[in-house]
Amino acid sequence: MTYCVGIKLDAGLVFLSDSRTNAGIDQISTFRKMMIYEVPGERFMVLLSAGNLSISQSVREILQVEKLDRGAHEEPLTIWNAPSMFDAARVLGSAVRRVYEQDGPSLKAAGVDFNMSGIFGGQIKGEAMRLFQVYSAGNFIEATQETCFFQVGESKYGKPVLDRMLTPRTKLNTAAKCALVSMDSTLKSNLSVGLPLDLLVYREGAFASQEHVCIDEQNPYYQMIHSTWGQRLREVFMSIDDPLGDNEPQHPLLVDSERYAPLRKITNPSERVI
Amino acid sequence: MTYCVGIKLDAGLVFLSDSRTNAGIDQISTFRKMMIYEVPGERFMVLLSAGNLSISQSVREILQVEKLDRGAHEEPLTIWNAPSMFDAARVLGSAVRRVYEQDGPSLKAAGVDFNMSGIFGGQIKGEAMRLFQVYSAGNFIEATQETCFFQVGESKYGKPVLDRMLTPRTKLNTAAKCALVSMDSTLKSNLSVGLPLDLLVYREGAFASQEHVCIDEQNPYYQMIHSTWGQRLREVFMSIDDPLGDNEPQHPLLVDSERYAPLRKITNPSERVI
Repeated sequence: MTYCVGIKLDAGLVFLSDSRTNAGIDQISTFRKMMIYEVPGERFMVLLSAGNLSISQSVREILQVEKLDRGAHEEPLTIWNAPSMFDAARVLGSAVRRVYEQDGPSLKAAGVDFNMSGIFGGQIKGEAMRLFQVYSAGNFIEATQETCFFQVGESKYGKPVLDRMLTPRTKLNTAAKCALVSMDSTLKSNLSVGLPLDLLVYREGAFASQEHVCIDEQNPYYQMIHSTWGQRLREVFMSIDDPLGDNEPQHPLLVDSERYAPLRKITNPSERVI
Repeated sequence: MTYCVGIKLDAGLVFLSDSRTNAGIDQISTFRKMMIYEVPGERFMVLLSAGNLSISQSVREILQVEKLDRGAHEEPLTIWNAPSMFDAARVLGSAVRRVYEQDGPSLKAAGVDFNMSGIFGGQIKGEAMRLFQVYSAGNFIEATQETCFFQVGESKYGKPVLDRMLTPRTKLNTAAKCALVSMDSTLKSNLSVGLPLDLLVYREGAFASQEHVCIDEQNPYYQMIHSTWGQRLREVFMSIDDPLGDNEPQHPLLVDSERYAPLRKITNPSERVI
């Protein structure tokens, strides 16, 4: 599996991906899942990919050269000439569909799902930053002010911290930390996600990737997050009142629901369960 | 969907279940998922169930009267005479298989999976407490010192906090709080899990359910957890150093991996992606 997250803030974009792939539990490998496409000063695009590795590798190779026909009077659309990120995402969708045409029937015959999803974001000169989630049918959705992040792969473990912390006003640094905490929770609870990580922070209007780091076991900041977050969580957790104090029969937890009936207790075989 | 968690500690057992079911997103209902079977002073058993509601309701009805043949010279095994929780779990497995015999073929013909899972735990006089996870084939596994909790349903959102906090030495109160925090994270991130909750705390050697509460929106302790946990998480989160201080070019995060190559950046269509 995989865990990738992409975040769109007022100040910029944050991308984080793990690098574990597995074909069954006994075949674990390391493949980086972040790809940068850029013309410095003019366009900057990042693709994070999850799903079947053969599909996602093919998609990102084909994406470089994919051409979407715009009729006789215009040159075909590519990620290199697209006037907007929306058009670039259409080219990505077309690349996904091309791989589907090439490999889909054989994968189906072999009983393998055509399974690929991606997070695609960036900025093209003349336009604001944009962030998309791309599905295996080549269709896509775009992040908004209300929903400013996308996750692909093993997304559930790390979703609560993103839900609680992120808004479009979040600072880039803080969002990068949030993505790392989200990744740390996922790594702790799911073996199919693994180091190294690729973290990329893009500042609005830069039109080039500046802050990228490949994070392995030796990275001191990640080590700090890994140990500090767990430790602080435990401290916060212990600082919250326990629910059922031995000497507190009137504890607030013991306020039983007035709306719902007490739970049925079955004490012999002939009682009926409702 | 559903979220249920069962925890086995040295001091006792904790069970927590939500009550949301859905048949499609536009058909949301409330069904309690915890069932207590008890002979006070002699045996205490709890079943939490997830999966297809028609299957799990049938299983818990049949469980009351299920008989497992032990040969001509012994009376059949039931949950009411089982000498051990292991035997009671075998009766539960048999109840699951009986429902499969009755409904499996028709469900299959209708394209519906035979999908049911359960957490089954308790204590029978003469034996220590035991906790099992039961699968839709009627087979089951047992919790140990190393793995002292089971989850069924939407388990991923709430797993990190359990992984970080629980050991068999955890106090009952603390484990109940941990289960509620885990449930709160799940409720926050997934609409298919909903209030009210059933929380049951069993103290070792009690052979009866004592501390049960049905928690709805009005419960002051749950309200406190819901607001305090999110607030404290944000405080802890903000207290951890941001990764990329604007004025700190030597920040520890910027220690790039020595083991892995820098990320490839594609700047024109003719480059090859590896």
